[in-house]
Amino acid sequence: MALRNKAAQKWCKKMIRNENLIYYSLKDAVYKIHGRTDETQPAVPLFWNAGSIEVNVTGTELWIDIEVDFDLYEPWVGCDIDGALISRQMLHAGRYQLCLFRHMNESTTKNVRFFRETQAMSSDSGHHLLIHGFSSDGVFLPVPDKKYRLEFIGDSITSGEGTYGARQEMDWVPMFMSASRNYASMISDALNADYRLLSQGGWGVLCSWDNNPHNTLPSCYEKICGLLSGETNEKLGAQKAYNFHSYIPDAVIINLGTNDAGAFNEPAWHDPVTGDSFKQHRNPDGTYCPADLIRFQKAVYDFLALVRKNNPNSFIVWAYGMAGYDLALPIAEAVSSYRKQTKDLKASFLQLPAATYETSGSRNHPGVRSHEQSAKILIDYLKVLLEA
Amino acid sequence: MALRNKAAQKWCKKMIRNENLIYYSLKDAVYKIHGRTDETQPAVPLFWNAGSIEVNVTGTELWIDIEVDFDLYEPWVGCDIDGALISRQMLHAGRYQLCLFRHMNESTTKNVRFFRETQAMSSDSGHHLLIHGFSSDGVFLPVPDKKYRLEFIGDSITSGEGTYGARQEMDWVPMFMSASRNYASMISDALNADYRLLSQGGWGVLCSWDNNPHNTLPSCYEKICGLLSGETNEKLGAQKAYNFHSYIPDAVIINLGTNDAGAFNEPAWHDPVTGDSFKQHRNPDGTYCPADLIRFQKAVYDFLALVRKNNPNSFIVWAYGMAGYDLALPIAEAVSSYRKQTKDLKASFLQLPAATYETSGSRNHPGVRSHEQSAKILIDYLKVLLEA
Amino acid sequence: MALRNKAAQKWCKKMIRNENLIYYSLKDAVYKIHGRTDETQPAVPLFWNAGSIEVNVTGTELWIDIEVDFDLYEPWVGCDIDGALISRQMLHAGRYQLCLFRHMNESTTKNVRFFRETQAMSSDSGHHLLIHGFSSDGVFLPVPDKKYRLEFIGDSITSGEGTYGARQEMDWVPMFMSASRNYASMISDALNADYRLLSQGGWGVLCSWDNNPHNTLPSCYEKICGLLSGETNEKLGAQKAYNFHSYIPDAVIINLGTNDAGAFNEPAWHDPVTGDSFKQHRNPDGTYCPADLIRFQKAVYDFLALVRKNNPNSFIVWAYGMAGYDLALPIAEAVSSYRKQTKDLKASFLQLPAATYETSGSRNHPGVRSHEQSAKILIDYLKVLLEA
Amino acid sequence: MALRNKAAQKWCKKMIRNENLIYYSLKDAVYKIHGRTDETQPAVPLFWNAGSIEVNVTGTELWIDIEVDFDLYEPWVGCDIDGALISRQMLHAGRYQLCLFRHMNESTTKNVRFFRETQAMSSDSGHHLLIHGFSSDGVFLPVPDKKYRLEFIGDSITSGEGTYGARQEMDWVPMFMSASRNYASMISDALNADYRLLSQGGWGVLCSWDNNPHNTLPSCYEKICGLLSGETNEKLGAQKAYNFHSYIPDAVIINLGTNDAGAFNEPAWHDPVTGDSFKQHRNPDGTYCPADLIRFQKAVYDFLALVRKNNPNSFIVWAYGMAGYDLALPIAEAVSSYRKQTKDLKASFLQLPAATYETSGSRNHPGVRSHEQSAKILIDYLKVLLEA
Repeated sequence: MALRNKAAQKWCKKMIRNENLIYYSLKDAVYKIHGRTDETQPAVPLFWNAGSIEVNVTGTELWIDIEVDFDLYEPWVGCDIDGALISRQMLHAGRYQLCLFRHMNESTTKNVRFFRETQAMSSDSGHHLLIHGFSSDGVFLPVPDKKYRLEFIGDSITSGEGTYGARQEMDWVPMFMSASRNYASMISDALNADYRLLSQGGWGVLCSWDNNPHNTLPSCYEKICGLLSGETNEKLGAQKAYNFHSYIPDAVIINLGTNDAGAFNEPAWHDPVTGDSFKQHRNPDGTYCPADLIRFQKAVYDFLALVRKNNPNSFIVWAYGMAGYDLALPIAEAVSSYRKQTKDLKASFLQLPAATYETSGSRNHPGVRSHEQSAKILIDYLKVLLEA
Repeated sequence: MALRNKAAQKWCKKMIRNENLIYYSLKDAVYKIHGRTDETQPAVPLFWNAGSIEVNVTGTELWIDIEVDFDLYEPWVGCDIDGALISRQMLHAGRYQLCLFRHMNESTTKNVRFFRETQAMSSDSGHHLLIHGFSSDGVFLPVPDKKYRLEFIGDSITSGEGTYGARQEMDWVPMFMSASRNYASMISDALNADYRLLSQGGWGVLCSWDNNPHNTLPSCYEKICGLLSGETNEKLGAQKAYNFHSYIPDAVIINLGTNDAGAFNEPAWHDPVTGDSFKQHRNPDGTYCPADLIRFQKAVYDFLALVRKNNPNSFIVWAYGMAGYDLALPIAEAVSSYRKQTKDLKASFLQLPAATYETSGSRNHPGVRSHEQSAKILIDYLKVLLEA
Repeated sequence: MALRNKAAQKWCKKMIRNENLIYYSLKDAVYKIHGRTDETQPAVPLFWNAGSIEVNVTGTELWIDIEVDFDLYEPWVGCDIDGALISRQMLHAGRYQLCLFRHMNESTTKNVRFFRETQAMSSDSGHHLLIHGFSSDGVFLPVPDKKYRLEFIGDSITSGEGTYGARQEMDWVPMFMSASRNYASMISDALNADYRLLSQGGWGVLCSWDNNPHNTLPSCYEKICGLLSGETNEKLGAQKAYNFHSYIPDAVIINLGTNDAGAFNEPAWHDPVTGDSFKQHRNPDGTYCPADLIRFQKAVYDFLALVRKNNPNSFIVWAYGMAGYDLALPIAEAVSSYRKQTKDLKASFLQLPAATYETSGSRNHPGVRSHEQSAKILIDYLKVLLEA
Repeated sequence: MALRNKAAQKWCKKMIRNENLIYYSLKDAVYKIHGRTDETQPAVPLFWNAGSIEVNVTGTELWIDIEVDFDLYEPWVGCDIDGALISRQMLHAGRYQLCLFRHMNESTTKNVRFFRETQAMSSDSGHHLLIHGFSSDGVFLPVPDKKYRLEFIGDSITSGEGTYGARQEMDWVPMFMSASRNYASMISDALNADYRLLSQGGWGVLCSWDNNPHNTLPSCYEKICGLLSGETNEKLGAQKAYNFHSYIPDAVIINLGTNDAGAFNEPAWHDPVTGDSFKQHRNPDGTYCPADLIRFQKAVYDFLALVRKNNPNSFIVWAYGMAGYDLALPIAEAVSSYRKQTKDLKASFLQLPAATYETSGSRNHPGVRSHEQSAKILIDYLKVLLEA
C-alpha cells in the first residue's frame, strides 16, 4: 500500500505546519460507530452503506486515517459536519489520512460523521474500507445516542442507487449510489434517530433479480455482514454472528420485494458447481405461478419471524412500492398472515408510491425526489408508532 | 511536492489494472476552460470560484492530473458528470491524479466538469490549483458552447459563502463556500449559459468591509485575476491584462455593495506602510455622511463605465440586496445617474430579497434557499432581457 | 317557494337592463350533466357531490335557473369558468336565477361548470337542487367529452369533508365539505377526465361508522342515488336503476373502509323497528374478531364483484388510507383474494398516506394538503394504467 | 328594491324554522369595520376592496342584512370563518339577508369576516354595498385588534385583478379581482395585522394609464373614498375627510407606478369639458422625456410627504415591480431624494419581482403565485421593520 502510515501533514509541504496534531488510534479516541461491524478489530471496517464513524471533537483540524482497497468497485464516502453534508468523494486505494476539516475555531466542538456512500460489495471480495484512527489538535468528547434507533433492510433502493447522477446514466457504478440522499437518512434525520442499514442491489427475500436463491437479505441477516466473501472480509469479521444486543432498534424497516418481482421475468439461475437451478415462473396468462408466489410469501413470513426473533420489541414495517407495485398484494397478504398466526401486532405493511419519470434518478431508479416522497410518508408513519 | 507525477494506477495496487489508460497533457486533450485564466500556461490555473475545465470523453475511466498548493486555505473542488453534481471534496497539496469516473460504459460520451468550489484567495499567495492533463482510455470530443454567456462579479455572496455548513458555523474556511449551490450556477443552468465569475469575500466597490480602499473588484477587473499576489501567481498569469475579446458576455451581473455598507460601521483602515487611512463615516444621527455616500456612488458609476468599456454590448445588471438593503437607494441612484448621463439603457438595477433566518446558511450568510430565491428572480429578469 | 320564477333581471332594478337575455329551458339549451342523475326529469337534479352542469356559451351574461330546498342541510355550490374556480356559496331555498357571469365579451365562448360542493344528503329527505334552465344573450355550443372517464366511490373523504374550514371546526355542516378541493377533482383535472362521484360521510362497505349495516355504498351502487329517501327524491328519480351504459368509466376508484374500521370501536346499532342489531367486535386483546373481519372482507370482495359486473372493462382501484391504515391489510387481502379467484387483474389496491396534523383540515379530516398528496399518488398510479 | 327587509327565514319555507333568530341593527350588534368608511351612517358602506365587517358571535346561525346596488359592475364578496375562506360570490342588487353560517354548535364563538372582493368602483356611481345588521340566535362578543395595523395603497395589482380566472380571460369584470388572493391579505395574515386598502385599477401617482391627471390615488388619499362620485356616494360619506386618528398604521405600503409607466405609451388625455389635455412623453429614442419624468418623480415625492403628514410615525414602503420594472429607478430616486431632504428615514423603497408567464393570472396581471412571491418578500421586509 503506497501511502500507508504517512503523517497527515506530509501532504502539504509548503503549508504552514500544524505542529499540534496528535495521532489517535481508535483505542485512544472517543467515537461512535454506526452500522454493523466488528468493533474488536484493530481497524474498524465500515461494511454497509451509511456505515460511519462519528466524533465530537474540538481543535482546529481533524484527519481520519483510513485503509482502502478494492478489485473492481471503489468505495465512496461522505462527511457531515454538525449535521450538514460537506463532502462526498471517491476513495483511492491505499492507506492514508484524509483531512475532514482544518483552520476552524479550536474551542468549538465539531460533530463529524464520516460515512460510506457505497453499499457492501458482495461482488468484490477485495473491497474494504477500514478506520485506523484520527489526527487532531483537539479533544475528543462523547457522542450521545439519538432519541431513536432504526434499522433499514433493503435492496438497491436502500443502497441509494439512482440518487446521484443524471437521468440518462445507466452504468452500475458506486458513484450513483448513496447514503446521503437516501430515504433512510432522511427519515433518521427527521426523527432524530441513529440508524443501521443493510442493503444489497439486486437481492431479494426469496431470491435475487436473476433467480439466485442464495442472494437474499434474510440469508445474511444474522451475521455482521454475511454477504461478503473472501479471506480478508472473513478476517475483518464480516462472517461473525451479529450481536443483536448491541443495538436494539425501535423499528426495523424492510424495503424488499422489488427484485423478487423481477425474478419472474428473468431466466432460471443455474449453479455452475452443483448444477442446481432456480426460477420463479409466470403462467401463460402472465400471472404468477401460485406455487412460486406461495414460496415467496413464505420467505416474507419467515423473514418477519427471523427479524422478530432477533428484535423482540421492535416495530417491523415492511415498506414496499418505490420501484413498482407488482408484489404489493402478496407481501401484504404474507404480513397479514404473519400477524394473524403469530399475534404479532407490531409488524405492519406500508405501501410507498412508485417513482415516476419526474421523480426517477439515474439508472431508472427512484431518484432523490422519490426518496423524499417516501421518506415523508414513512416519517409520518413511524412518528405515529414511536410517539404512541 | 510529494505526489508529483505518479501514474494514476499506482494508487490502486491490488486493483485490476486498466492497461488502456493514456496520459493526455492539455495540449493533447480537447477541453474547455470556464473562468478567467491564462490559457498559455503549460498547466492551466483555475483562479476563480467556479473556474473549471470541461471535457466530453468516451472510455471507461478518467483521471485528472492536478497540482495543488496553499499556505493557509486549501482549495475545494466539485465534479459534475452529465450535468449532475457527483463529488465535492477538499484538495490536499501536491501534484497527483484524481479519478473522476471509472468502470463506465466505454462507448458513451460523458460530459465532465471539474470546478473550483473556492474563491480566488487574495489572502493566501501560496494557494493555487493547476490542471496538467488527463488520463483516460477514451477519446476526447469537442465541448460546444452553451446558448448564452454570463459574467458574475461579486463578494462573499457570489463566493457562495454560507451555502454549505450548518447554521451555527462561524469559521471563515473554504469548506463553507461553493460554486455548486450558488445563484450564479443556478442561473446559468436555467438559462443554458456558460459563465465566468469574479468574487472576493469582504470586498466592495469603493472599499472593503473594513474600509480598505484597495480591496475592490473594480481595481482588478481588467486583469485575469488581479487580486492574487506573490511571485507564483504572477508567473501563472494572474496579473496579466484580461482579454475581453476572449469571452463576450450577453450579460454581466454585479452583486456588490454589501461590504461597502458594512464599512460605515467599521473603524478606519490604516495602511501600515504609507500611513494612509480610509473610512466611510456615519453622521451622529446614524445616516451616511453625504460626501462618503457620494464617493461610493461615484465608484458604482465608474465601475459601470469600466464594465461597459470592456463589454460594449452586454446587458449590465446591478443586483443587490441578498444580505441587506442598506445601500439599495444609493446604488439605484448611481445606476440611474449613469443611465441618464451615458444614455446607456442596457445597464439596470435589480433589488434582490434579503436572506431571512429561514433562508440563511452558515456564517450568517445567505444560504442555499436564499440563493434559490434570488436566482429565480434573476432568471426571470434575464430571460426578459436575453429573449427580447 | 318565495322566489320562484322571477326573471333574472328583476334582481337588479336600477341596473342597466340587458334586454337581450333569453330564457332557455334545459330542452332548449345545449349542456352536459356530470354525475349520476335522471336526465328525463324536466328539471335535472344534481344529487351527488360534484354533480354538475357544464355549458359552452357565448354572450355577455349567463344566469342559471335553479330550485333548492332542504329541511336541515343546505346545499353549497361552486362555479368554474374556463376551468378556474370563481365562486363558492351557500344556496338559500327557493326557485331563482343565479347570475354566473355578466358583462363579458359577447363573442368569446365561456366554459362554465356549476357544481355541487355538498354530498347527497341521506339524512335530509327535504334536500334537493334542481336545474331548470338558463338565461343568456349568447349561444350554447356543444361540450366535448374529456379524454378519460372516472368514477369515484367513497365516504366523507370523498365528500371532501375537512377540505374547507379552520382546523378547529368540529361542526358537521355542508360548508366544510367540497368537490372543489377534493382529490377526485384534482385527479380528474390532471388526467383531463370527466368524473362521477358517489360518496356519503360515515358510510362503509359492510356497515357505517356506527354499525348500521344498511348504510353502505354497495347497497346503493346500482341506483341513480339510492341513498336518498322520501317522496320527492323518489319522484326525482333517485331510486331508479342506474344505467351503466350511459357512462363507461376507464377507472373506478373506491375509497372505502375508514368507517368500517371505526365501527369496531362503536356500540352496536339497533334497528328501532325490527329490533335487529349489528356490531363489529374486537377481541379482548384489541384485535378484530376473525368472524367480523371475514364478513368485512367478504363485503369488499362482493363490492368488487358488483362494480365489475356493471363495469366489465374498467380498472378498479381500491385506494385506502387517508384517514388511517387500520383495515389496509384486510382490504389488501380481500382484493388479492378477489383477483385470484376471479382472475380479474384489472382490480388492484393502492395504499394512500394518512393525513397528519400538518395535512389535516377541519373536523379532524384530511385537509386540502392531504388531498393533494393522495391525488399526486393516484394521478401517477392511474397514468400508468390508463396510458399503458 | 325588490327584496328589502325580508326576514332571513322567509327564504327557507320548508326548512325547520329557527325561531330563535333575533335581528340586530348595527347599533345593537358588536362588530369591527375594516377599511375606510363612514361609521356614522345608519347602514355602513364597504367602499374599498377588502372592506369588511368582522364579528365574534356564538349561536347556531348568522345572517347578514345587506343592501346592494350598481349600474354596471356588481360587487363580489367573500366570507372567512375562523380565518378560513368559506365562500366567495357575486351579489345581486337589492336589500336582503345572506346566511353566513347555520347549524353550528351554539356555544362556540365563531369569528366571521364578511368582505368585499371588489375594488371601489369609480366608474359606476350607482354601485354600493351597505351593511344594515345581522340576524342571529347567538351573542356578539368584542373583536380584539390584531398585533399590527397596515395600510395598502395601490392600483389594479392591489385590487387583486388577475388573482381569479383562467389565464386567457381578458374581460375587465369584478369576478377576476379579489381581496382573498391578494398580497395585502397574505401579508396581513402572516403578520397578524389588521389592514385597510385603497386601490383603483388603472390609476397612478401622477396620472392614470391613459394620462388622466385626475385619476390618482394621492388625489383622494385624504377623503374616506374620494374616488367615488354621485349623489348616493356623497350621502354615504365617501367624500368626507378621512379621520387619520381613527386608524394609525404601523406601516403604509404603496404599490403605485405601474400605470404611470403605461401612460408614456398612450395617447394624450383630453378633458371633454375644459379642453385641457395631459400626456407623458417619450423621446424619439424611446427614453422618457426628462421633464415628464421629473413631474412623475415630484408626484412620488409629494405623495410620500402627504402620507407622512397624515401618518407621522408609520413606516412607509414604496413597493414596486410586480407588473414590470419600468419606473423602478425613477421611483427609487424620488424616494431617496425624499429621504435626504426630509431626513425621513422611515420611508423606503422595495423592488418586487415582476410576474412571469408562470406566475401571471387572468388579464395579463400578476396571478396568485406572483402575489405569493411578493407577499413573502414584503412579509420578511416588514418583519424586520416592525420587530426592530
